[in-house]
Amino acid sequence: MTNSSIPEYVTRVHESFDQQTVMATMGAQLTEVTAGTVTIELPYNRELCQQHGFLHAGIVTTIVDSACGYAAYTLMPAEAEVLTVEFKVNFMVPAKGERFVAQGRVIRAGRTLTITQGDVWAILDGERKHIAMMQATVMTIRP
Amino acid sequence: MTNSSIPEYVTRVHESFDQQTVMATMGAQLTEVTAGTVTIELPYNRELCQQHGFLHAGIVTTIVDSACGYAAYTLMPAEAEVLTVEFKVNFMVPAKGERFVAQGRVIRAGRTLTITQGDVWAILDGERKHIAMMQATVMTIRP
Amino acid sequence: MTNSSIPEYVTRVHESFDQQTVMATMGAQLTEVTAGTVTIELPYNRELCQQHGFLHAGIVTTIVDSACGYAAYTLMPAEAEVLTVEFKVNFMVPAKGERFVAQGRVIRAGRTLTITQGDVWAILDGERKHIAMMQATVMTIRP
Amino acid sequence: MTNSSIPEYVTRVHESFDQQTVMATMGAQLTEVTAGTVTIELPYNRELCQQHGFLHAGIVTTIVDSACGYAAYTLMPAEAEVLTVEFKVNFMVPAKGERFVAQGRVIRAGRTLTITQGDVWAILDGERKHIAMMQATVMTIRP
Repeated sequence: MTNSSIPEYVTRVHESFDQQTVMATMGAQLTEVTAGTVTIELPYNRELCQQHGFLHAGIVTTIVDSACGYAAYTLMPAEAEVLTVEFKVNFMVPAKGERFVAQGRVIRAGRTLTITQGDVWAILDGERKHIAMMQATVMTIRP
Repeated sequence: MTNSSIPEYVTRVHESFDQQTVMATMGAQLTEVTAGTVTIELPYNRELCQQHGFLHAGIVTTIVDSACGYAAYTLMPAEAEVLTVEFKVNFMVPAKGERFVAQGRVIRAGRTLTITQGDVWAILDGERKHIAMMQATVMTIRP
Repeated sequence: MTNSSIPEYVTRVHESFDQQTVMATMGAQLTEVTAGTVTIELPYNRELCQQHGFLHAGIVTTIVDSACGYAAYTLMPAEAEVLTVEFKVNFMVPAKGERFVAQGRVIRAGRTLTITQGDVWAILDGERKHIAMMQATVMTIRP
Repeated sequence: MTNSSIPEYVTRVHESFDQQTVMATMGAQLTEVTAGTVTIELPYNRELCQQHGFLHAGIVTTIVDSACGYAAYTLMPAEAEVLTVEFKVNFMVPAKGERFVAQGRVIRAGRTLTITQGDVWAILDGERKHIAMMQATVMTIRP
């Protein structure tokens, strides 16, 4: 596959992700970008925890928010900016794992607002547990 | 004021906060703990940003989630644990500032569930701007 | 006070409220309209209940959604339409009362999106109990 | 199939639904009950509308809240009660249709809290449009 066969939105999401300094600080990686779906992974990091040594809910939120935002961004015009309007997250079990996988996907892409859903799984001893679920509203900012 | 005059919940919240490694990693500080209200402050940190150099929405969420959780925790029995069930956050303006102040407060403390509200303000050039608003459900875990 | 001294938005909110057939069906009334705040009241109605004879959570939501939407509408240009993008509601105690009062207020009015908060109280034996709390995103639709 | 082969939770959900007076008032019907999934349908009703003649967002919420609550209820012990703790709903398109179908399903059933997701579709001219999406937290109340 030559470079020219990579969809424009894949490059665009990777470039924007690389500018999110918090992702490098946390050690998060962009592992999948397709039209309307983005996956971000984060290894467990003892320095990002709450009081019981599990990943802080806000850090879980950080990866799934970026996953949802970038999922929306894949479907936006190239010159647009993406902005999180709001989200809601349910934390179903404590974020205990060696690695965390956050996936965001577009449910409906409107002209101004895109509605997305996201999930986070914890990987522990080869098992995958569904730990959190997001519903987010993302805005397209046109220049 | 002697140590013995400090309410038990203040000590308890400080001890738990000190165990949240993510708070030290980010540079956040616990600046106020009263019965039902907790304030956390975070200086701007270039390493915790989204693609435009503003604080990432997930980091804004991290401080206001802890503020809401600890606000609930001040009203819980000493032996209980606190757990975030879910939250919803609206981001009203980008998190542009030198410093961020998150306050959580209890709206209703039930036996099992506590409902809280949180706000985040950005401080920039001596001005205080309301940038985000949370509504969170927190659970009391009894031993 | 002459008619001409009634602010334009008060008339506009009343006219729109009168077109919401569900309000008449439920027996809800618009009791207060100021710039950025709207109050709607609903007497208890045995025909709008859940399985324990309390007002259904969806009906509680209906009045506070309209209160929040119209609070936003008071600050919109006269020719605009108002649309609920999303909301989140916490139900703190069962909706047991003789009468229910829902108030919505604008927290931030943006060009496209307005962020509002709403509360519902139940009135029972002269006491007022805070039963539900909403955080809603409302959109301004320009012609 | 004899009566005795109907799962206990199906009977239980139907009995509870029949006690929700708001369902009869609106004209809603329980059309499907399986373990962890419940579907409720509502024909368009001119008396349940907002200012543009579409179903009010609160009414859309009412059917999907009951669908989510009863989905959770199917997995609860027979003697338990079900209570909506909170929900968040995104309204993706106006509720324009001849008929509305709300489905709730359990994502995770915990001892005390059950996390559910719900969707609402509008049926118009034989087409099905996804109009709203809910994420709800439901509580099991044990006697």
